[in-house]
Amino acid sequence: MNIEQFISRSEGQWRSMRSGHSLAFQQFDQIISLLTIKLLKYNDPKVLELLKANSKEEGDFISPFHIKWESESDWDNNDSSKFNSGQSILIPIPKNNNQGFLIRSLGYTESTPSLSKYCFLNDETLVLRTKYEKTFTEEKIWFLSENVRCRSSVIYTNNQEGVMQTSFASEVKVLKSKKDQTQNHS
Amino acid sequence: MNIEQFISRSEGQWRSMRSGHSLAFQQFDQIISLLTIKLLKYNDPKVLELLKANSKEEGDFISPFHIKWESESDWDNNDSSKFNSGQSILIPIPKNNNQGFLIRSLGYTESTPSLSKYCFLNDETLVLRTKYEKTFTEEKIWFLSENVRCRSSVIYTNNQEGVMQTSFASEVKVLKSKKDQTQNHS
Repeated sequence: MNIEQFISRSEGQWRSMRSGHSLAFQQFDQIISLLTIKLLKYNDPKVLELLKANSKEEGDFISPFHIKWESESDWDNNDSSKFNSGQSILIPIPKNNNQGFLIRSLGYTESTPSLSKYCFLNDETLVLRTKYEKTFTEEKIWFLSENVRCRSSVIYTNNQEGVMQTSFASEVKVLKSKKDQTQNHS
Repeated sequence: MNIEQFISRSEGQWRSMRSGHSLAFQQFDQIISLLTIKLLKYNDPKVLELLKANSKEEGDFISPFHIKWESESDWDNNDSSKFNSGQSILIPIPKNNNQGFLIRSLGYTESTPSLSKYCFLNDETLVLRTKYEKTFTEEKIWFLSENVRCRSSVIYTNNQEGVMQTSFASEVKVLKSKKDQTQNHS
């Protein structure tokens, strides 16, 4: 598995069940959202703009993509401001087949542009590590089948000594990418 | 990391926040429990009895241990029959430093004795795969720090084509093993 194959398998629309654990307060939260993952063109102005603003990492980029998320509900808290919708552009810059960098226009933990390191474990799990201003985050994403994937995340304090939050999402593909739909009809 | 080190780090008492996802019904459940993991003596009669009943796997066993779990609450369902308490004896039989078998007196998914295969990923995550009569289960357990670990599980249909349930637990050590406590006081 390399990052190009991983993103290709991820393209489409996913219904995500996500549980969050706040360890200090022993609080759970849960949410259902719809994720839409779509490949972008290499010359998309938004891709070129994001690359220009993050020109530090050298190397060719590959498979730039767009993620959009919309929550369907958050019945535990009834607090629509907590997690509603958003979008981010992501650009992988592979170092080799197994690891590289990932530029994001909007980070996972803090809502600022971010630069993650990624690598693959030997069971094809994708691991993303991101140092933010106040936190450090490790995300893992792995496929259970073509249409089901899992995503765990851990938010550490910046020095990585304390674990603040964990989360886990189970994602089921509800709509394939346009490419796959065309293939299915041909 | 080998299985002996992994079990040694796991010994003690853990408060576990666990979220379950039923994919077909989009249902969440959540529970807080207390896990107690304790090493057993090699000549403990319960260990010898379990080994005798599972004499198919050849090789020396190592670090037999006992897990006890007690739920504190399940406020989503108010159904105390769902998950309350239980215990299991587990006996690892390493094939080499990286993989082996695990005998359990009580399986994770089905309440019968079970035999799992275990292996370690290259980030020291322990993976357990178990074929039950009606299901196939994959569990992953990994340490975030000395006192925090995560556990994910996936329950597949027996032919491994469908994913029925996933779960994720965040576990915080609340009491160390007796050995560690003695060391701290010496």
